[in-house]
Amino acid sequence: MFRLLAISGSLRAVSSNTALLRAAATLAPNGMEIYVYGGLGDLPHFNPDLEGAEPPAVKEFGVLVGEADGIIISSPEYAHGVPGVLKNALDWLVGGFDFINKPIALFNASPRSTYAHASLTEIITIMSGRIIPEASITVDLREKHLSDEASIVAHPEIAGLLRAALDAFADAIKRYQEQDEEKMA
Amino acid sequence: MFRLLAISGSLRAVSSNTALLRAAATLAPNGMEIYVYGGLGDLPHFNPDLEGAEPPAVKEFGVLVGEADGIIISSPEYAHGVPGVLKNALDWLVGGFDFINKPIALFNASPRSTYAHASLTEIITIMSGRIIPEASITVDLREKHLSDEASIVAHPEIAGLLRAALDAFADAIKRYQEQDEEKMA
Repeated sequence: MFRLLAISGSLRAVSSNTALLRAAATLAPNGMEIYVYGGLGDLPHFNPDLEGAEPPAVKEFGVLVGEADGIIISSPEYAHGVPGVLKNALDWLVGGFDFINKPIALFNASPRSTYAHASLTEIITIMSGRIIPEASITVDLREKHLSDEASIVAHPEIAGLLRAALDAFADAIKRYQEQDEEKMA
Repeated sequence: MFRLLAISGSLRAVSSNTALLRAAATLAPNGMEIYVYGGLGDLPHFNPDLEGAEPPAVKEFGVLVGEADGIIISSPEYAHGVPGVLKNALDWLVGGFDFINKPIALFNASPRSTYAHASLTEIITIMSGRIIPEASITVDLREKHLSDEASIVAHPEIAGLLRAALDAFADAIKRYQEQDEEKMA
């Protein structure tokens, strides 16, 4: 059983990125569970002085990241950059070991958001996350008038893309876990 | 009298970027006042649902930005990106008018931090801030063993660079204000 953590970069109540992740959770294949994290807005601002004495919300987030077999991130772009609230969550992970070698799928709900996607790729790579290209999809929810989970799940093309991405993600996670076990053996 | 707002991207108590801004405040020429903002960590996470109903800390920040003749930003780089806490503050300004056409000086306390500097340049430009290159300086505080305001102010080379940058910033602000007044006349 693979357990994935899904993180939306938007705190908006009606967010296309959150809807995309919820749809992925619904469409998850057998043997995969996706938990959509809702605590991003409760993490305090990162302060290096608190490293080693992280507040409880940060510790809980680290445990969720550490225990996940993989992470899906779907994020809007604000002013050609990564939303501060999402980068803040990543900042808390930089000094620890929870994120290292973690398989990451980068979802993007808007083809126009190229800057944040490129920044996230750079940031996650330097943090030693393993971005899985075949599990990372960009879809145009607005163009297709899809704004909630139910309409995404019911859309054959987008649902098909999500299913294929999740299958590819499962394959990559399995491959990495086998490789890592071999190295430890 | 020019009133500048200085924003450090680090919440660390002993931060080279904050020290650089405090040194600039001390070295400000006649006719210039620099206020080092200390409220970055008190801003809530940006949520588009709150636009138009911003929490008081966000409104106060907007007023400070709106009233400033220019802004100096000095920021560390975390994992090849802008610190989330700084991007979060900028995210709150995206939807409003306080930041538009604002003259901006980008300070950098570490020549190794090139990614965050490049991202900030992109973000500020798309937000219609006016980056003033001749007022934007990169200094190597670590290489020179400068860690606090007093040692920076006492260092002839760095203090000279700061004074020259502030003079250039004042000239640029004056030029823009005259241009803007002509357009309004």
